[in-house]
Amino acid sequence: MNGADALLETFVDNDVTACFANPGTSEMQFVAALDRQPKMRPVLCLFEGVATGAADGYGRMADKPACTLLHLGPGYGNGVANLHNARRAFTPIVNVIGDHATYHRQYDAPLNSDIPALARPNSLWVKSADRADDVAGLAAEAIGAAYGPPAGCASLILPADSAWNETSRRTAKATIPARVAPAGEAVDAVARALKAAKKPVVLLGGQACRAEALAQAARLAAHGIRVMTDTFVARQPRGAGVFAPGRMQYFGEAALADLEGVDLMVLTGTVAPVAFFAYPGRPSLLVPEGCATVTLATRQEDSVAALAALADALGAPASGPVQPLKRPDPAPAGMLTPQSAGVAIARHLPEGAIICDDSVTSGGGVAVPCMTAVPHEVLALTGGAIGIGAPLAVGAGVAAPDRKIVALCGDGAAMYTVQALWSIARENLDCTVVVFANHSYRILNIEMGRTGSGNPGPSASKLLDLGAPKIDWVAMAKAQGLPAVRCETAEDFERAFGGAMAQTGPMFIEAAIP
Amino acid sequence: MNGADALLETFVDNDVTACFANPGTSEMQFVAALDRQPKMRPVLCLFEGVATGAADGYGRMADKPACTLLHLGPGYGNGVANLHNARRAFTPIVNVIGDHATYHRQYDAPLNSDIPALARPNSLWVKSADRADDVAGLAAEAIGAAYGPPAGCASLILPADSAWNETSRRTAKATIPARVAPAGEAVDAVARALKAAKKPVVLLGGQACRAEALAQAARLAAHGIRVMTDTFVARQPRGAGVFAPGRMQYFGEAALADLEGVDLMVLTGTVAPVAFFAYPGRPSLLVPEGCATVTLATRQEDSVAALAALADALGAPASGPVQPLKRPDPAPAGMLTPQSAGVAIARHLPEGAIICDDSVTSGGGVAVPCMTAVPHEVLALTGGAIGIGAPLAVGAGVAAPDRKIVALCGDGAAMYTVQALWSIARENLDCTVVVFANHSYRILNIEMGRTGSGNPGPSASKLLDLGAPKIDWVAMAKAQGLPAVRCETAEDFERAFGGAMAQTGPMFIEAAIP
Repeated sequence: MNGADALLETFVDNDVTACFANPGTSEMQFVAALDRQPKMRPVLCLFEGVATGAADGYGRMADKPACTLLHLGPGYGNGVANLHNARRAFTPIVNVIGDHATYHRQYDAPLNSDIPALARPNSLWVKSADRADDVAGLAAEAIGAAYGPPAGCASLILPADSAWNETSRRTAKATIPARVAPAGEAVDAVARALKAAKKPVVLLGGQACRAEALAQAARLAAHGIRVMTDTFVARQPRGAGVFAPGRMQYFGEAALADLEGVDLMVLTGTVAPVAFFAYPGRPSLLVPEGCATVTLATRQEDSVAALAALADALGAPASGPVQPLKRPDPAPAGMLTPQSAGVAIARHLPEGAIICDDSVTSGGGVAVPCMTAVPHEVLALTGGAIGIGAPLAVGAGVAAPDRKIVALCGDGAAMYTVQALWSIARENLDCTVVVFANHSYRILNIEMGRTGSGNPGPSASKLLDLGAPKIDWVAMAKAQGLPAVRCETAEDFERAFGGAMAQTGPMFIEAAIP
Repeated sequence: MNGADALLETFVDNDVTACFANPGTSEMQFVAALDRQPKMRPVLCLFEGVATGAADGYGRMADKPACTLLHLGPGYGNGVANLHNARRAFTPIVNVIGDHATYHRQYDAPLNSDIPALARPNSLWVKSADRADDVAGLAAEAIGAAYGPPAGCASLILPADSAWNETSRRTAKATIPARVAPAGEAVDAVARALKAAKKPVVLLGGQACRAEALAQAARLAAHGIRVMTDTFVARQPRGAGVFAPGRMQYFGEAALADLEGVDLMVLTGTVAPVAFFAYPGRPSLLVPEGCATVTLATRQEDSVAALAALADALGAPASGPVQPLKRPDPAPAGMLTPQSAGVAIARHLPEGAIICDDSVTSGGGVAVPCMTAVPHEVLALTGGAIGIGAPLAVGAGVAAPDRKIVALCGDGAAMYTVQALWSIARENLDCTVVVFANHSYRILNIEMGRTGSGNPGPSASKLLDLGAPKIDWVAMAKAQGLPAVRCETAEDFERAFGGAMAQTGPMFIEAAIP
């Protein structure tokens, strides 16, 4: 077998079985080896930002890494933004970055670049397999590194000759370290601090926002402690039967107003909250003055065990509050807005649906009615790099083929990785993409005032407005093989979204909002 | 004035007057300052890879930098692939990469990343303006750095507070170093080596492929010396009245066969040629065994002066051969192929047209008949990162509003930066985009065999084929506001391309090829 075969064998032996790819000449051996390794599912993405966002969605849902296949430095570069988001989501991903043959690098051929330098900022681990005999061992190392904890990207550079040369080292076993629960004394100290505090808050992030952890956190709420989550969470259950903590506000001043008087913040699976952006004269750190912070569980540690131990130490009830099922009624009517669309979404969302949220200013309108929808999960934009909604949906759809996937995208965001629509059609995923088309970078119109930049004049408006020409989203989706419909009223949207949820397979809905 | 005003004032004072942008919150001060600086033309791109490719096209045509405006590390990341191409084209570009306020960086907010590390591989110069008072001086330094020679990217990081804080340092003057001619003795040594060689070749690249240099190189050809160019040249005139050197073959074995017996290679504005990729058992360096290489002019030096001096030293004629005007006749008919499309293109191309070539396997068919078309210029894919054709066209169109722009794109390549179509429509550029739609990564089908990977089976084919679903390119273009037509025969294409050349403004043509 050659190095490419060894790589695939090591992947599948360690349960890495999905590959989001856009290969080039230097990756042809890997591509050929796929024919000899049927346990690996290759998914073609027409742009690497789709591949990396899909690997993120896959990793969030499967709790194991997919691999990407990227073409040298530029291919990796195209994937950087969604790997940035994955880094902030702590998603396990193994990037395979093809490179020139080792002996060819010295000639600085046109596609040559400093791949390790490009890969390091978003990778926990970067190594190059410079001999075919190294491939299996380093692939196993990469898989282990990607698991963390906390998880992240591992980037394995695969020179073409390491892929085509023969090797007898067929496979290797990855070492996957487990999360460790915090020490009992540390938990007891947090319990004492909580008892002593007048107005404490427990802030959850990452693993602490997953189903098992939320069930434990609900016990704290039942004990009278306020529980909140980070503003943007990689994966969180929502809806009926699920504990619904509060959420850190996006804008710093709103967050601090919400936290007024809080004297203790217990950090669980996260760090002290900070403002998304800086604004003149406004604070960066979103911890009120005089508020102490204490860490119950770091991102490395086991938040589930920590929350359970804390609830036990406090003598909290065995279970806590969960959301009721209250599907909105009647159906929305009149103007189509994020709010009326949200009502329709909450009415029709099937149980177990996975919402991939890249909807920017439209997101809030959807979130509120979905708090009492049937139980579902939400994958948020963790790193602020727009263009992740439809790519996440590709990956979530591959990871969870029996669940309905709903991507909610702003139109500005959706254009970033519009090629993801093709992969949804290609793989026939059970996925509905909703694009909220306000033909504007609406968030920037809001932010412009907040940064003290004043109102946009003619030149500034040219950079905020998407309306000339107006993108025809239905044509855009149909061009890539998706059935598509435009909705201009709430009734339209109620009908289209209800229909999409009642059927199986890909669907695209343009929500024409003001 | 604030730092953003100082940045724009420094730019326009140094003749940097076009900005290809996709801003975010941290860039709002720059956006607002545009309203106060009417000499800067802002061009919105819906994805940063379009912005950087456009800046490349602009820089190649204007011989001065445009600036980009990019949103932190992820925004820069999205632009990496086309900056890689720009690096290989030696194009002057000044990237403005917005960043968090300096005091906010320590909190590692979600969009925070190691921008200098990401920027360095494709930048000649990377600095952060950490005070408003630094902005003008560093902007001038960046502009000077971008000019080289040879030119390249300079990346100026602009923290939000440096943009919004007041400054009295309004502007600064960039120092733009000139190219220096090689010493007379060095030229004489090359002349002696040429006289002594049995079968010499002069290889041109970069600046040595521009109009003035080609006129001097033609004198060498008239003197009986074989003159060739690099395979992929940033900007080169072509057609009637222009000297047409040979071109280094793409595939290494073809290149070496073509160079058989060559005993001297004189490098002018370039370095010794290397294979684009490595293949098992095939050479990397494309210099025949026993062939000496000597440098007439480095990329830093003045190739025009060097070639003129060499021609003088050899006693070459005052002028050399140029291409005749031979528009193909009759019009092409029957099956639409790159070759028949090329005939139509050569027939209708208007004088001074600028071809932005990202057509991969279709390019050769067009190039041949265009050798004797009216004089025009060609901008090639220099770095191998596909997805540059339409972005280059955006930038070339802004730089050269009185010239017809023609982008030739493979369909796989065009999907990479398909958002460029919107900017062409938005700016109403006199640009025709041709997408050769074979619904395949055709080049990879060829390369797969060459790398010894065998024929693609079912899994491999999934990564090479774009045909399921077939992209509807006319719908894709219309969705973004371009008039569009599909051509399925040579007659269709002749009519559509002829019509597009006869009118002014944006046009899109899908060339359905087998």
